[in-house]
Amino acid sequence: MDVTRHNFREVFEHVERTIADATFLAIDGEFSGITNSAFNTTNYDSPEERYYKLRHNISDFLLMQFGLVAFKWDPDEERYVSEAFNFYIFPFRSTTPGLPDRVFSCQSSSINFLSAQNFDFNKVFHHGIPYMRQQEELALSNSLNEKHMMRIQSFKSPGKNADLLNRDSKSPMGSPTMITDMKTQVFLEGVKDKIKEFLKTSDESDVLELEPCNSYLRKILFETVPTMFSEPLLLESRTTEKTKLRYLAVSRLGSDENRLRKQEEAKAKDDSSLLDAVGFSRVVRLLKSSEKLIVGHNMLLDLLFTVRQFIQPLPPTLDELKALVTANFPLIIDTKLMSSTLPFRELIPVTALGELHNRLHEKPFAFPTIVPPDKYRSNVNSDSNLHEAAYDAYITGKSFLGMLDFLASLKSQDAKREVFANMSSEIISPYLNKVFLMRSSDIPYLNMSGNDLCPSRAHVFHVQFPTAWKSGDIRTLFAPVSSAIYISWINDTQCFVSLLDKSQVRQVRNTLIKPGGMESNPYIIRTYEEYQRDVAGQSFTAPPWRPRINATPYSRNKVWRPNSSAHNSAESSSSYITNSSGGNETPKSSTSRKRSGEDAALPKPSSVRRISSTSNRIGSLDLEEPDLKRHRVIDAVSASVPVAQSKAKTDIPALAVSERRDEDMDNSVSTSKPADEMFEVPEWE
Amino acid sequence: MDVTRHNFREVFEHVERTIADATFLAIDGEFSGITNSAFNTTNYDSPEERYYKLRHNISDFLLMQFGLVAFKWDPDEERYVSEAFNFYIFPFRSTTPGLPDRVFSCQSSSINFLSAQNFDFNKVFHHGIPYMRQQEELALSNSLNEKHMMRIQSFKSPGKNADLLNRDSKSPMGSPTMITDMKTQVFLEGVKDKIKEFLKTSDESDVLELEPCNSYLRKILFETVPTMFSEPLLLESRTTEKTKLRYLAVSRLGSDENRLRKQEEAKAKDDSSLLDAVGFSRVVRLLKSSEKLIVGHNMLLDLLFTVRQFIQPLPPTLDELKALVTANFPLIIDTKLMSSTLPFRELIPVTALGELHNRLHEKPFAFPTIVPPDKYRSNVNSDSNLHEAAYDAYITGKSFLGMLDFLASLKSQDAKREVFANMSSEIISPYLNKVFLMRSSDIPYLNMSGNDLCPSRAHVFHVQFPTAWKSGDIRTLFAPVSSAIYISWINDTQCFVSLLDKSQVRQVRNTLIKPGGMESNPYIIRTYEEYQRDVAGQSFTAPPWRPRINATPYSRNKVWRPNSSAHNSAESSSSYITNSSGGNETPKSSTSRKRSGEDAALPKPSSVRRISSTSNRIGSLDLEEPDLKRHRVIDAVSASVPVAQSKAKTDIPALAVSERRDEDMDNSVSTSKPADEMFEVPEWE
Repeated sequence: MDVTRHNFREVFEHVERTIADATFLAIDGEFSGITNSAFNTTNYDSPEERYYKLRHNISDFLLMQFGLVAFKWDPDEERYVSEAFNFYIFPFRSTTPGLPDRVFSCQSSSINFLSAQNFDFNKVFHHGIPYMRQQEELALSNSLNEKHMMRIQSFKSPGKNADLLNRDSKSPMGSPTMITDMKTQVFLEGVKDKIKEFLKTSDESDVLELEPCNSYLRKILFETVPTMFSEPLLLESRTTEKTKLRYLAVSRLGSDENRLRKQEEAKAKDDSSLLDAVGFSRVVRLLKSSEKLIVGHNMLLDLLFTVRQFIQPLPPTLDELKALVTANFPLIIDTKLMSSTLPFRELIPVTALGELHNRLHEKPFAFPTIVPPDKYRSNVNSDSNLHEAAYDAYITGKSFLGMLDFLASLKSQDAKREVFANMSSEIISPYLNKVFLMRSSDIPYLNMSGNDLCPSRAHVFHVQFPTAWKSGDIRTLFAPVSSAIYISWINDTQCFVSLLDKSQVRQVRNTLIKPGGMESNPYIIRTYEEYQRDVAGQSFTAPPWRPRINATPYSRNKVWRPNSSAHNSAESSSSYITNSSGGNETPKSSTSRKRSGEDAALPKPSSVRRISSTSNRIGSLDLEEPDLKRHRVIDAVSASVPVAQSKAKTDIPALAVSERRDEDMDNSVSTSKPADEMFEVPEWE
Repeated sequence: MDVTRHNFREVFEHVERTIADATFLAIDGEFSGITNSAFNTTNYDSPEERYYKLRHNISDFLLMQFGLVAFKWDPDEERYVSEAFNFYIFPFRSTTPGLPDRVFSCQSSSINFLSAQNFDFNKVFHHGIPYMRQQEELALSNSLNEKHMMRIQSFKSPGKNADLLNRDSKSPMGSPTMITDMKTQVFLEGVKDKIKEFLKTSDESDVLELEPCNSYLRKILFETVPTMFSEPLLLESRTTEKTKLRYLAVSRLGSDENRLRKQEEAKAKDDSSLLDAVGFSRVVRLLKSSEKLIVGHNMLLDLLFTVRQFIQPLPPTLDELKALVTANFPLIIDTKLMSSTLPFRELIPVTALGELHNRLHEKPFAFPTIVPPDKYRSNVNSDSNLHEAAYDAYITGKSFLGMLDFLASLKSQDAKREVFANMSSEIISPYLNKVFLMRSSDIPYLNMSGNDLCPSRAHVFHVQFPTAWKSGDIRTLFAPVSSAIYISWINDTQCFVSLLDKSQVRQVRNTLIKPGGMESNPYIIRTYEEYQRDVAGQSFTAPPWRPRINATPYSRNKVWRPNSSAHNSAESSSSYITNSSGGNETPKSSTSRKRSGEDAALPKPSSVRRISSTSNRIGSLDLEEPDLKRHRVIDAVSASVPVAQSKAKTDIPALAVSERRDEDMDNSVSTSKPADEMFEVPEWE
């Protein structure tokens, strides 16, 4: 069912009941963007670093569509019945005073992606359901209460207030606007006649609605009407439903009874406005209070967006985040993590949602009986709905059940019924509260209810180098020790290098790490530990992984390079060809895309880059023109390059799937598990 | 005519011809937002300050719709013929490598506003025309050229490159991905058979398009296919037109002739992609090269957005901006400024576009004969199209002609023909290159081709005070000298106060301005000159008009206030009522709205504010959670308050129309000209 702000009220109770009745829930979100490129994620982020980066990268984007699917076990029929809600979300600002005028961001690639799936942006922008965090609601509620108290107060003694006000109107600015034009005079006379007529023919429960008019005329009316009549009148500014034009409504202040009734009406309207403004956040609170198991696929961003948009700002530390997530969603399972873990790891080559769902239709897998949601009943196995939030949530929940069926089948029929009926089983416990971590070499998940894995990174080195260096330079630098290295880019001037052969660690330390900083060497190599201590550890407020402008004293035209024949001028262009075959590159994060793009576009320190930084300088301030800063990057040269080059190295191999979206666009996620660096995931017993 | 990226190519030549033939052009833009609230504009901004603030406030928003209307004088028929183009703009990112992944912002109120006009966001997001600044185009062009050179190079000697590449593939990371699953093996065998068959039956001009597959499989193919066949093959990654799925196309590298043809085809495709990517910026370049008169209404933001989005980043100084605007648009007229200037000032009470257009239909005005654009022919005088960019541009141009007709009528019929035919007349010169400045007490316009007005501000004082102060406190502070003051808010802790009676300046200096800073006084009063020197003049990079957090040592619960009975506790709630009657308030900028909203919501230093700042603190970093920071503001209490209060002062009276959008929403702009502080505009001779 599609839910907008127009049917939200009437659907809400049904949603409430459905959540309460559910055996478990599946969710999915669609976003207006996923990274503002404030930070590049790397394969060797610590969990804290990763959270810090994501928090800043997503900070202004909007969760535009929230898919919620309830799965309910029917023990008699031994089947699941499912129901889907597709909520459209937008920070709609009604005429209720006190609502924030929110600013959110959109990312071109994310919009293009949704557009290719025929996403209905009008439905979001015209009809989206608003939302409020608890603190925002409290502030609005206080403001409405104050307003109401003021209303009561002034209903009691308008005269006194008038006196108080008159004191202030000595100020010339408080005096009525001068009416200089004929048109306004005529307008005013017309209104006067109307009100006079109204007062003759109406009683105190009647309201006279004047024609909509502009604020200049409304101001005149507010100033002038009370001076025209002896009887105390109530003037209210209202807005026409459809055309959103403002007009004034006139009524008698009338008897005490009438005043009371008006007060109560106004209060009821306030309460109703507040409820509307809290909007979708009410559904998120239902999720919390239900304490049901919530299933998502690659759900880290879904969780971060949900917390940030509907609950409260993302806290500064990962520990606080975990506490917050656990407090709101105490039971979560990520099907991407589940399908990447044994026993499924061996059986499911590609864990992107669509591929996973398809794979589970084949042996050895089987689904329990599931009655699909109405909306997807006719075309439940087509992919035409893919990337509609509710459909994705549905196949996420379904995939979860497919895997659960497999696990339970290894036990007994009773165990299966047991887990299907109430989800409280040791079968699911190995996967509980572990959220998949994209593009990480050795930490496959964030553990929401405990400490994260802390794999040894003794074989990983941090390298800082001149901007003009390319991967060939890094390789040449390490060549005396090892040709079996793996480069993970941080930015233009930093990368991680890991050694396949861990016995070479000592040799790197002895021969490559040199005393002195960038002043005495063109590059610096640190152990990962040193890097964490020296640089990353400094502070989360001045992160070192932000690109350092002018970190090196070397000009772009004259760059020291490791001594190697591969880098003499004759070969520089072929070396650059070497680096630029886009064809065999797997989808990569912006970092890696950036890197290979630059290699491709810039055989020598190139005009392209220099031009970009010039135009950046024209913008003068750093905070100006983020798009130029963000996107001076040239993408990887695409693949119309002869096959002969197809063996060009892939420095950032499989892992480098950008957070979430790239995966889905390419339906390729096996790439996030390089054959030689397979996760150490807890094995299913 | 509506123009999207799907008909842009075919329409472009027609646009080019129409611009070349035009007598003058009218433009209008619709934006995704107009302020991120980085800075509050004030009534006493210097032109440089104002530009600085606007530049930062609009920095991430998108011009989504560009209306262009060409008016062409037909001397035989003595009439204008008009043609309208409504361009939908979006940073669409095609598959061409090197395109930026732009991030832009949307503002809730702006989207709501457009939504109320039935704006078609799908047309923008799905079908918008992309754009590029000149520098971005240059970078992309260089990148495509490099790619092409590489292509030529590798077509020449694939073998050599292969050798070079093989050197690198000693790295284990460069070695082919291990194929561990059966499914991939089967897939690979299938492709091998297909290619084998293809090579048997095809000649060198044929291309074999493989089925779309994920990046993992594409990587495998890129690595494996060349090792399967002895003949050199060309593998290209392509994208399906509709579903945007990636697939590989296989062909023979073939004869020299064939290679050359392929090269040329590829080059032609690059050129075409580049042209598409430059997109709407090509139209803006036509505007420049045409050197035609360009008419807009309240066009400052239109100019800023157009320069920033399609030409180059906004320069840091106003002088540079003026040079840039003049270089691109040497002849501009702003109909809002024109209609606010004599002789029109006396004849046109409301200068909002719709009102202006309507007013010009009445005596003493008359339009020359204008053939409307096709699109608006049937309902040209209805307002149902209002705020569609092309329609607004049309009635802007029409309003210009209405005013021009009036001016020329004062001369002769010949003069009228003369000015209608070529726009080069002393009649229009007083209005040339003067762009209307919203919400400015004494500087009505920016002079794009010269120095700006520099009115005396000797009667203006800058006041800094504790956060809890409200307008009553400021009034009480000045009460010993003058009750006739006008308060213009800067932020929570600063405002400008101007004196109606300029003879009181000396008294303020003598009695109110005290030695010592905030350490010894609860407030500081500076002359405007001192403020400019001490604070505003410091640097544009650390602007003083940004809200100062904790600028004062006073807690919110215990605040020093000027001594006055109005501020004892008994009266504080009525004082707050005084300040909060929303009814007679004219539409205000966020500053003023904020202020009065706080007055309304916070009778005492209130929990609302404290809560907001707490939740802000939860976000920990300043750059986090801008929406909370921006919007902790509570709007003005709306107007269901008895008339008795309608005389509450309006501290920020008429001027305080927020930059542009508020005006249009309320159709009220006479409010931007307070009766007692009328602009000193150059009078029409």
